[in-house]
Amino acid sequence: MRAVDIIMNKRAGKELSPEELQFLINGYTAGEIPDYQVSAWAMAVFFRGMTPGETAALTKVMLKSGTVIDLSGIEGPFVDKHSTGGVGDKTSLVLAPLAAAMGIRDPMMSGRALGHTGGTLDKLEAIPGYRTNLSVEEFRRIIAADGFAMTGQTKDIVPADRLLYALRDVTGTVESIPLITASILSKKAAEGAEALVLDVKYGSGAFMKEAAEGEKLALSLVDTGAALGLNTAALLTDMDEPLGNMVGNFLEVEESLDCLEGKGPADLMEVTLELGARMAVLGGKAPDAAAGRALCEKTLAGGKPRELFLQNVKSQGGDPQRLLELRGNYRSPVTARVKAPRNGYISRIDAWKVGRASVDLGVGRNRTEDKVCPTAGVQFHAKRGGAVKAGDPVMSVWAADEKGLAAALPRLADAVEYSDAAPKLRKLILKSIS
Amino acid sequence: MRAVDIIMNKRAGKELSPEELQFLINGYTAGEIPDYQVSAWAMAVFFRGMTPGETAALTKVMLKSGTVIDLSGIEGPFVDKHSTGGVGDKTSLVLAPLAAAMGIRDPMMSGRALGHTGGTLDKLEAIPGYRTNLSVEEFRRIIAADGFAMTGQTKDIVPADRLLYALRDVTGTVESIPLITASILSKKAAEGAEALVLDVKYGSGAFMKEAAEGEKLALSLVDTGAALGLNTAALLTDMDEPLGNMVGNFLEVEESLDCLEGKGPADLMEVTLELGARMAVLGGKAPDAAAGRALCEKTLAGGKPRELFLQNVKSQGGDPQRLLELRGNYRSPVTARVKAPRNGYISRIDAWKVGRASVDLGVGRNRTEDKVCPTAGVQFHAKRGGAVKAGDPVMSVWAADEKGLAAALPRLADAVEYSDAAPKLRKLILKSIS
Repeated sequence: MRAVDIIMNKRAGKELSPEELQFLINGYTAGEIPDYQVSAWAMAVFFRGMTPGETAALTKVMLKSGTVIDLSGIEGPFVDKHSTGGVGDKTSLVLAPLAAAMGIRDPMMSGRALGHTGGTLDKLEAIPGYRTNLSVEEFRRIIAADGFAMTGQTKDIVPADRLLYALRDVTGTVESIPLITASILSKKAAEGAEALVLDVKYGSGAFMKEAAEGEKLALSLVDTGAALGLNTAALLTDMDEPLGNMVGNFLEVEESLDCLEGKGPADLMEVTLELGARMAVLGGKAPDAAAGRALCEKTLAGGKPRELFLQNVKSQGGDPQRLLELRGNYRSPVTARVKAPRNGYISRIDAWKVGRASVDLGVGRNRTEDKVCPTAGVQFHAKRGGAVKAGDPVMSVWAADEKGLAAALPRLADAVEYSDAAPKLRKLILKSIS
Repeated sequence: MRAVDIIMNKRAGKELSPEELQFLINGYTAGEIPDYQVSAWAMAVFFRGMTPGETAALTKVMLKSGTVIDLSGIEGPFVDKHSTGGVGDKTSLVLAPLAAAMGIRDPMMSGRALGHTGGTLDKLEAIPGYRTNLSVEEFRRIIAADGFAMTGQTKDIVPADRLLYALRDVTGTVESIPLITASILSKKAAEGAEALVLDVKYGSGAFMKEAAEGEKLALSLVDTGAALGLNTAALLTDMDEPLGNMVGNFLEVEESLDCLEGKGPADLMEVTLELGARMAVLGGKAPDAAAGRALCEKTLAGGKPRELFLQNVKSQGGDPQRLLELRGNYRSPVTARVKAPRNGYISRIDAWKVGRASVDLGVGRNRTEDKVCPTAGVQFHAKRGGAVKAGDPVMSVWAADEKGLAAALPRLADAVEYSDAAPKLRKLILKSIS
């Protein structure tokens, strides 16, 4: 077998065999097949796609490139949630303890902020002391104790994806549905999940700008999940506007606490409850999504999820008391407000522009090696559909430094669009796929 | 400017600007842009193609990556011929002295055998003493003295192509018409040619299996040549059957001498004269192809081309007398014959199969570092359309060693197809494009 023949087969639109994919991916991971052949292959995949069987075979090969977390000895079911990334999306922080309170175990391995999108690990690390570099043993122990644990991937989880993603990132081959599918599912299967709810986002702040593309990805994820024996459901959700009223690391922890206390903003609660409903169904706790949602609402109202969240903060090295004291006060001193320039309605807040500005503020990062600021961010005082008068504050803004503030403010002002009449509201949940 | 953006622009089907191409190719040649980005770009080019302007810009950037031979001080016109490669194609050895005899200078830089195709340099080196590693000064001096010189590319001729071609070869990105065009024309422009006749071959023994693909390449070469100020004409010629009756290094030198003496086989003479006719036209020696062909025939009959060929052998280190003594005798002792298994007609001799067998014999090579054998090869006693009786010799075969002979014989036997009725002959020259 030769890598160049595998590339040419894909270039010609042929379905690669599991053996060919194994040869290519294992060879690459072992350092035997050079990156210039793999990038050419990835570009051929971008143009030619993959069959469902091929995508599943690729996912399996990638999954087997590293450690698969063994959760045996802990009682399941193990259900995780994964989002394709957005701005202001803190649903993971609410869903993990909510699922745990329903008797579902969530072995959650998350990522960091990159580009305009936020990252769960950066948000959690805004809690002083919170550790996201758990060993596998700690991960297991905390899941058993709290019902969930939230950590970063260890280096031996799907090393093929680590290599391949870094290569795709610099070779213009990120936006390939089968490659995205294999990347997501190989990692989720490796962390010990038995079932998976996917939040596939579309809109300006999402990876997929168009709903149609998002739907293709959602279908690919659900089909490939099924082929792998990973029970998978997906929601196609709006990411044209930031989710909730807070964008920032500690700010989003605060808003997660609001949700756990039943006072989260409506858009964020809606997406959280619909995702939670699917977790309940996949975990066998509810017969259908409507019953799952009712169970989520009842469970949240009972207060157990909030209790489990604070317990997990302690388990992972933080101080729950200190977290509650910081709430409302832990803000960068470099601050400003964005005000409405006119009377009218907010017709749109462009999530991509807010996300880009948040990188200036220090919430996110352009390069993986950059540090983020826990106390920077944006709080929206009004969102799409909100009526404003000229001079009303639309956002409060906190930045890591003056330079970042100066860069972000015009971008943030530019992110808000106004209209004379109340705008039609967008549907938050476009489709449910399972 | 970032390489990844250039890749994504091409991936999206956009026309790259000359500045983008310069950034990419110069960065690659300088070792600043890694091969894994260039291979992904090349695959995107394979799928998206290039506009004529883009192809011309790429060719210019590549041309400027190295030395351009300066032939000033020598009287022109400088017209070269280039073939896309085939089996038994020794027209260069006849055309260079023929052109010189017509008062045209041919600064010929050629390549070596690779895979199933032969190489002019390997054929010339079969002449004992003949040197194909001329310095630029020697190249100039011999062109001035003999009217032509035949050498390999020096390392500083289009280094970008050397790098890019090696990368394309292992990443499944060879078969891209704009990339082939830029590769051929950048080298031909760098060697000092002012006008160029291209022999674009199609058929089993050619790079392009289908005439339609060959025609696309021919059009791209002629159009891009025009954009570069390189006056270019192309013939689309048959390479489904080996050209002439000899395939082998010294064997093809002998057959070239036959042509120079007016006794070459009909198919080889036809292609040679048609190419020579275009060289005469581009060199301003004839008003049209018909007049050019008549001039070629007359010039050959006058004997001057043969004289110039032998003079060049001496200029480049060989001994013309010894060459003529070796003629008919310089053969490997490891020999056999392929005989007709039946009565009938030869309906086809598959050039690709003969080319592959010739690698076994030692005529060609699979890897650039392999050595070739001067005295190995095949002589056809009958070709397409020839009537044979069972047991008639169809080929004489000479191999570098017994192992090679054993591997080649079944392939050679398999290359010949027979029929009861005389087959329709293929057209040798399908199209003339200028």
